[in-house]
Amino acid sequence: MSTTGKTITCKAAVAWEAGKPLSIEDVEVDPPKAGEVRVKVTWTGLCHTDVYTLSGSDPEGAFPAILGHEGAGIVESVGEGVEEFKPGQSVILLYTAECKKCKFCTSGKTNLCQSIRAYTGKGVMPDETKRFRCKGKELFHFMGTSAFSQYTVVSQYSLVAVNEKAPQEQTCLLGCGITTGYGAVTNTAKVEKGATVAVFGVGCVGLAVIEGAKHSGAKQIIAIDINDNKQSWATKFGATDFVNSTKLKEGESIVDRLVEMSGGGLDYTFDCTGNVKVMRSALEACHKGWGVSTIIGVAAAGQEIATRPFQLVTGRKWQGSAFGGVKGKTELPGMVDRYMKKQFDSSPQIDRYLTHKVTLDTISQGFDHMKSGECIRCVVDMS
Amino acid sequence: MSTTGKTITCKAAVAWEAGKPLSIEDVEVDPPKAGEVRVKVTWTGLCHTDVYTLSGSDPEGAFPAILGHEGAGIVESVGEGVEEFKPGQSVILLYTAECKKCKFCTSGKTNLCQSIRAYTGKGVMPDETKRFRCKGKELFHFMGTSAFSQYTVVSQYSLVAVNEKAPQEQTCLLGCGITTGYGAVTNTAKVEKGATVAVFGVGCVGLAVIEGAKHSGAKQIIAIDINDNKQSWATKFGATDFVNSTKLKEGESIVDRLVEMSGGGLDYTFDCTGNVKVMRSALEACHKGWGVSTIIGVAAAGQEIATRPFQLVTGRKWQGSAFGGVKGKTELPGMVDRYMKKQFDSSPQIDRYLTHKVTLDTISQGFDHMKSGECIRCVVDMS
Repeated sequence: MSTTGKTITCKAAVAWEAGKPLSIEDVEVDPPKAGEVRVKVTWTGLCHTDVYTLSGSDPEGAFPAILGHEGAGIVESVGEGVEEFKPGQSVILLYTAECKKCKFCTSGKTNLCQSIRAYTGKGVMPDETKRFRCKGKELFHFMGTSAFSQYTVVSQYSLVAVNEKAPQEQTCLLGCGITTGYGAVTNTAKVEKGATVAVFGVGCVGLAVIEGAKHSGAKQIIAIDINDNKQSWATKFGATDFVNSTKLKEGESIVDRLVEMSGGGLDYTFDCTGNVKVMRSALEACHKGWGVSTIIGVAAAGQEIATRPFQLVTGRKWQGSAFGGVKGKTELPGMVDRYMKKQFDSSPQIDRYLTHKVTLDTISQGFDHMKSGECIRCVVDMS
Repeated sequence: MSTTGKTITCKAAVAWEAGKPLSIEDVEVDPPKAGEVRVKVTWTGLCHTDVYTLSGSDPEGAFPAILGHEGAGIVESVGEGVEEFKPGQSVILLYTAECKKCKFCTSGKTNLCQSIRAYTGKGVMPDETKRFRCKGKELFHFMGTSAFSQYTVVSQYSLVAVNEKAPQEQTCLLGCGITTGYGAVTNTAKVEKGATVAVFGVGCVGLAVIEGAKHSGAKQIIAIDINDNKQSWATKFGATDFVNSTKLKEGESIVDRLVEMSGGGLDYTFDCTGNVKVMRSALEACHKGWGVSTIIGVAAAGQEIATRPFQLVTGRKWQGSAFGGVKGKTELPGMVDRYMKKQFDSSPQIDRYLTHKVTLDTISQGFDHMKSGECIRCVVDMS
C-alpha cells in the first residue's frame, strides 16, 4: 500500500537534549512538501560531528532533534515540483547541498551551496517548518539530513541519486567522512605527483586523505597520530611514514621532526583533528615558499588558530576544506561508479573504512565503538 | 682613474646603534670578491622597513650597519667569476635575491630565493665577512643591499640590470614598495577581471595594490585607511570607494561595513599595515567560499595573527606575499621597459608615487617626511 502523501510512523534515534544518550522512538514523518523528497534511510554512518552536536558544544545544535548526516537510502516519494527524483532511486544524503543555481554553485570556486544553508543551520526545512513529530512534540532536523530516522524528509538539493547496484551500507560513507578527506586532497589542495604530504589524525578522514594523496602520486605521506595502533592503518592506506606525536625526542617539536623528515617542510599538510594547536603545527610544518596547509577538522566553538604572519609572508598558505570541496550532485555519482568498477587508483576503496556495524536499536554501542580508537567507521543498519 | 680593485672611500648614512638617528660618515668600501658586484648607488627610496630596523625592533637588525634596501645605481666593478654584469650597467638592487639555481628558484612556486638568505639575514656577505669599514670598525650589511651608501657591494644574485635610459630616481622604487604591492595583486593573488578588492593601508604599497587591482580589471576597489587625506590618493590610483576605519557607525565593525559594501564579502583583500588585528579583519571581510586575503605588511616581532578556523573551512584562504611574489631578475627589466614605453595599463606608473626628495646629507628629514602622512615615497639623491 502506497505511503505517498501520508504521514509515516517509523523508528528513529531521537536526541531529546544535549548530553543525553539517543533514545529510540516511534516518530511521525510528514510527506514531503514542494521541492522536498522523503527518503527511506537504509544505512547511516556515525561521524564525530554527530557526537559533537549531541554533546551540546555545537552552537547550531537545536533540541529535540534527529541527528545523523551520513546516510544512504531509497526515495519513497517526492513533493510537488520535484523532477530530478522518483520513488525507488538509490540516493546519498548531502549535508552540503547543491542547487546548481545560487551565486556559490555557479561561481566555479566553491562547493558551499548557500541556497538552503540558513535553514539547515537552524534545523528546519526551507519553509521554516519541521517534518518530524514524536510524543506530540516537533523535532528539529539536522544538517538538512537527519539520517538517524528510518524515514527522513530533505530538500531536493540535499540528496543525489547514484548507481542503484552500489551497496548502500558503503555508499552512505561518501556522505561525509571519506569524501571530506579524499576531496580535500584532490579538490581543495590539488596535491600533485611527487609531492610531500603530512596528515594529522588517522581516523576515517585522515585515512581518506592518505588514500587521496596516494592516488595523487605523493612521494612521501607522513601520518601523525597519538595512538600507535594507527600506524598499521596508515600504512595500509598508503602512508610512507608514521610519527606518534607524543613520543618525540627531548626538546623536539612535531614541526621540527616533520621539517627534518621532509627535507625542509611539507608541500601539503592536512589537519583532521579539530585541535587548533595541531592546526598551527600543520601550517608551520609546511615548506617555506609554497607549502599549503588545509584545515579539515572542526574546532570546538570559540577556539582560534594563531601563528606569526611571517609564516604566511614567507610563502605558506592556510586554507580549509568542507566536504572535501566536493559538489555532491556533480561528483558523487562518478565516485560511486568508479568504486563499482573497482577503479581504486582514482576513487576511495570504501569497504576498507567500514569496521563496525550496529543496528538502530544499538546505535549507542556504535558511539562507544567510535570512542575506542579501534573504529574507523561504524555504520547503522536502519532496517 | 679606475677604482677597480681598490677600496673606495665615500659617504654613507651609518646606523651606529638601534634607536639613534643615522650619521653621515666617510666609509671604506672594499672591492667585490668572487661572485660580488660593487655598485655606485645613485638613488635610494626610504621604506618603513628601514625605520623598523633602525628602531631596534627587527630581530635580524645587527649594528653598526648601513641600512637601505630600495636602491638603484651603476655597476662600478665586478668580482671574479661574475659574467652577468659589467661596469656601467644601470641596475636595481634586489633584497630578494634571484640565483635561478636553488630549490626555490627552480620550483616555479616562489620568488623566495634562498641561495644567500642565511647571509643577508645576518648582515654579512656569502663568505661571512663584510665590505664596509668606518672609523676602524666593520659595518654590517643590510638585506644584502645596504643602499644608504654611495657605494655598496652585493652578491651577483642581489641586483638586476635594467634599461639604462630609465631614470634611476624612479627605478629605485621598484626595488621594494611598488613592486611589493603591485606584484601581490598580479603575481600572488592573481586578481581577475571583475573581482572585488579591499586594500588596508594607503601608503606606497597600498597604492601599488590599488594600481595593480585596477590594471587587473577589478570592478570594485575599496581603500581603507585611518587618515582621510588618503582618500584622494586612493581615488587617483583607481580606488572606487574609501572607508575611514576610525569613523564607522555605532556598533559597526570594518568587517560589517566591507561585507555590506561588497554584497557579501570581498574576492580579494590585502593588508598593507603590518597590524595583526587589521590582518584578521582583512581575512574575515573576504567572501565565503572563495575570498583570498594576502598579508603584505610586516608585523612587529612576536605578534601573531588569529581567527576562528571556521573562517578557513568555509572557503577563505590566508596567504602572504613578499616582494610581490616577483622574481627580480626575471621580471623587473620588463616592468621598467613597459614603464619607459608608457604602458601604464600593465605596469606601475612609478613617477606618481614619488612625492619627496632629499639628499644623503638630509636623509633624516626624509624619515620625518615618512612620518608626516603626506609622503608616499621619498627618495634620496645619493650623489
